[in-house]
Amino acid sequence: MRLRVEQAHGVFGALAAELGTAAVLVGDAVPMRNRCDWSGLEPATPLAVVRPVDAAGVSAAVRACRDAGLPFVPQGGLTGLCGGATPRAGWVAISMERMVGIEEIDAASSTMTVKAGTPLETIQRAAEEAGLYFPLDLGSRGSCAIGGNLSTNAGGNRVIRYGMARDLVLGLEVVLPDGTVLNSLNKLLKNNAGYDLKHLFIGSEGTLGIITRVVLRLYPKPLSTMSALCALPDYDAVLAFLAEARRGLGPLLSAFEVMWPDYWELVTERCGVRAPIGGGHGAYVLVEAQGTDEAADQPRFEGWLEGVLERGILADAAVAQSLAQTQAFWGLRDACADFVGVLGPHISYDVGLATGKLGAFTARCKAGLAAAIPGCESVYYGHIGDGNLHLVAWVPGLPLAEQPKHAMDTVVYGTIREMGGSISAEHGIGTLKKPWLPYARSEVEIALMRVLKSALDPAGLLNPGKVVG
Amino acid sequence: MRLRVEQAHGVFGALAAELGTAAVLVGDAVPMRNRCDWSGLEPATPLAVVRPVDAAGVSAAVRACRDAGLPFVPQGGLTGLCGGATPRAGWVAISMERMVGIEEIDAASSTMTVKAGTPLETIQRAAEEAGLYFPLDLGSRGSCAIGGNLSTNAGGNRVIRYGMARDLVLGLEVVLPDGTVLNSLNKLLKNNAGYDLKHLFIGSEGTLGIITRVVLRLYPKPLSTMSALCALPDYDAVLAFLAEARRGLGPLLSAFEVMWPDYWELVTERCGVRAPIGGGHGAYVLVEAQGTDEAADQPRFEGWLEGVLERGILADAAVAQSLAQTQAFWGLRDACADFVGVLGPHISYDVGLATGKLGAFTARCKAGLAAAIPGCESVYYGHIGDGNLHLVAWVPGLPLAEQPKHAMDTVVYGTIREMGGSISAEHGIGTLKKPWLPYARSEVEIALMRVLKSALDPAGLLNPGKVVG
Repeated sequence: MRLRVEQAHGVFGALAAELGTAAVLVGDAVPMRNRCDWSGLEPATPLAVVRPVDAAGVSAAVRACRDAGLPFVPQGGLTGLCGGATPRAGWVAISMERMVGIEEIDAASSTMTVKAGTPLETIQRAAEEAGLYFPLDLGSRGSCAIGGNLSTNAGGNRVIRYGMARDLVLGLEVVLPDGTVLNSLNKLLKNNAGYDLKHLFIGSEGTLGIITRVVLRLYPKPLSTMSALCALPDYDAVLAFLAEARRGLGPLLSAFEVMWPDYWELVTERCGVRAPIGGGHGAYVLVEAQGTDEAADQPRFEGWLEGVLERGILADAAVAQSLAQTQAFWGLRDACADFVGVLGPHISYDVGLATGKLGAFTARCKAGLAAAIPGCESVYYGHIGDGNLHLVAWVPGLPLAEQPKHAMDTVVYGTIREMGGSISAEHGIGTLKKPWLPYARSEVEIALMRVLKSALDPAGLLNPGKVVG
Repeated sequence: MRLRVEQAHGVFGALAAELGTAAVLVGDAVPMRNRCDWSGLEPATPLAVVRPVDAAGVSAAVRACRDAGLPFVPQGGLTGLCGGATPRAGWVAISMERMVGIEEIDAASSTMTVKAGTPLETIQRAAEEAGLYFPLDLGSRGSCAIGGNLSTNAGGNRVIRYGMARDLVLGLEVVLPDGTVLNSLNKLLKNNAGYDLKHLFIGSEGTLGIITRVVLRLYPKPLSTMSALCALPDYDAVLAFLAEARRGLGPLLSAFEVMWPDYWELVTERCGVRAPIGGGHGAYVLVEAQGTDEAADQPRFEGWLEGVLERGILADAAVAQSLAQTQAFWGLRDACADFVGVLGPHISYDVGLATGKLGAFTARCKAGLAAAIPGCESVYYGHIGDGNLHLVAWVPGLPLAEQPKHAMDTVVYGTIREMGGSISAEHGIGTLKKPWLPYARSEVEIALMRVLKSALDPAGLLNPGKVVG
């Protein structure tokens, strides 16, 4: 049974008395930022935003919501793309925005313990100042919070070497849906004492618990970065090049980004990004390696690339001779951030597929979109070394609300289903992709997810309706 | 309600009719090997061993057990050390021994799909024949099965570079405790479409489901291996050396094994292993790197080590000049396999702790054992780069049954609890360490594990009494 709004406000008064008035914003005091995330979904004003400073405060907020029968949604940096952190009317948002800070850096164990609301960029900088490296990196690094990065199991550019966000976590503190504080702040690389609980919460988009603190794994700081921009005749050559990169660069390989010709033309011709090599090729690859020896690594990288050129795999290649050139190469890959201004309204996708099948997928998907939707254009690019393709589709001239998103979804996700891929490689499901989840996961898998959801949140008040809720 | 043995045999007759007579061994036909694992626990003869050839067969066996109310235990290579695969009288063993073979190697995605009963060594060889590398490696490689490696989240020597067994898995096929076949044979590095289910089954020691097929992640084959055996004055120097290795070798660092003086003396003096450097030091480290350039890597490795020597961190060092020398270096570390013959009966431990604390732990533990147990000796060694220490304790001259195991456990696990470590870094809990689980995990953690166990196995027939059951 749900309380009426007036009664609920009494709940927030009690919570404000317990956590301090700065911790509870009600009604008109609810800021715009807490009403939606970056998904483009319709904003909704929650009854209140609760902003605790620690797990005990989150637990108090959760218990208050439960006592009042109010649904609640955890919020981090609100940069998610699928609606996982978006509230609905009548809900309570529990925000980590005041839970910011680094509690410990343990150099001997190469770990860092941080509060969940800490921005990713703060963590990257603190690691660097300690002479170490935290490899997770995304465009939203200045705004996103580490708790949200883990809730969505964020990816990014260097997954090929360091793994997803999941792989960079050793321990968690989580407030469970009943308000219990689970302290599982393990700092050990190897711990086989009972079930691994952290993986249950990572990637479940705030539907099984609220992450409040995190033990992260740090890496040695790379002492050299080498990169090259290469042109290739076709996708088969891309696959051969990837095999050469894996073999020749071994664990130094830190990025393998592919751009299809339609993307390349858009970026070099319409976004105005200068390219160090000419166009007209079948595929473009940005390959990057990180090493430990500034003097020796660059000649080794160039020697490796010359060998690949001699074997006839590449049509053209340019090697960065400075950090500025490396950044210019990445400028081609990162130009997709400017698509809103250049293309106007468009729909973005984030699909996963076995690397060997991605060439065929792009051809089928592009043809399928053009056949099903008159005037539909699409471009393709992504973290191909990880089997993660991004694609953007649009009908020129139409406002966002009139873009035929459902028809596009049907082609993109239908092709993914036929080829055995995933509808989300890194952005998650939230509410935006929930109707398509059966395209990527079987009935048995989804049923088991629901068993887990019911076991942890039998009252169904934590972020209901998201993922499988 | 349990059936009597005579009725149960009727169940096995029906199962033999469905799966073939070779699939069902009853009564005296139950082989010795299926009666216990390597834990040293008392063998027990199950009512029957069922040996299906696929997930459908495992599902049929599970349903038959459920219908008859019989507990069942999954079995792989039976090399586990904590009793996870040991049956009890009146149980049914469901063995993966006939589910052997490699189904696919996908070179473009760097994945391999295998049946759960396949021995680890078969997988290592198949990867190598395909020009790739599967890095998991354990002493029992010829006997252990990959399904068991995953059920126990096996570790081994190269975790520092490639992670635990968990980190080498992309997808699973699992038969759930109700007989449902969960096909989650994902081949993607990045897949955020809903909850990650595989991590629930990996490391849960066959208590949440029975793994029947696996998609493994393969790596490029290392083209060079460099190693050195080093002597250091004390554990602080070991920590400084580890920081140098992480920084200077970066991702090439593939092993960092430490041997304490008591271990070193035992191995060089009583096991008769020849050492390339003299004794009398405070600690010994075997450091190994794997690279991609046979000609250039060795001089680079030696240059790095010379720099460390010049900075005064090492007392002595020998670099392997050949594969034979590398193997000789590993002979010192692997000599612990001969302890049964040299020491007689002894008790082995496998603990985890923050790397920075392991020096203090060994001193406290050794003193604590000597103080609590007259005549007790102990030696220390392990995968210190991962915070994983092995230790062996014994009272000379006593048979195994009279070794004061409980008193030893009390000191070892008590010290671990005081210092915030784990009672198992890689071997698991099974039944052997179950009483000590609260020393490493909190009440809230154990309660959540039981919530998961009840949610997946409400009938409680899958491997009951293990881990948290």
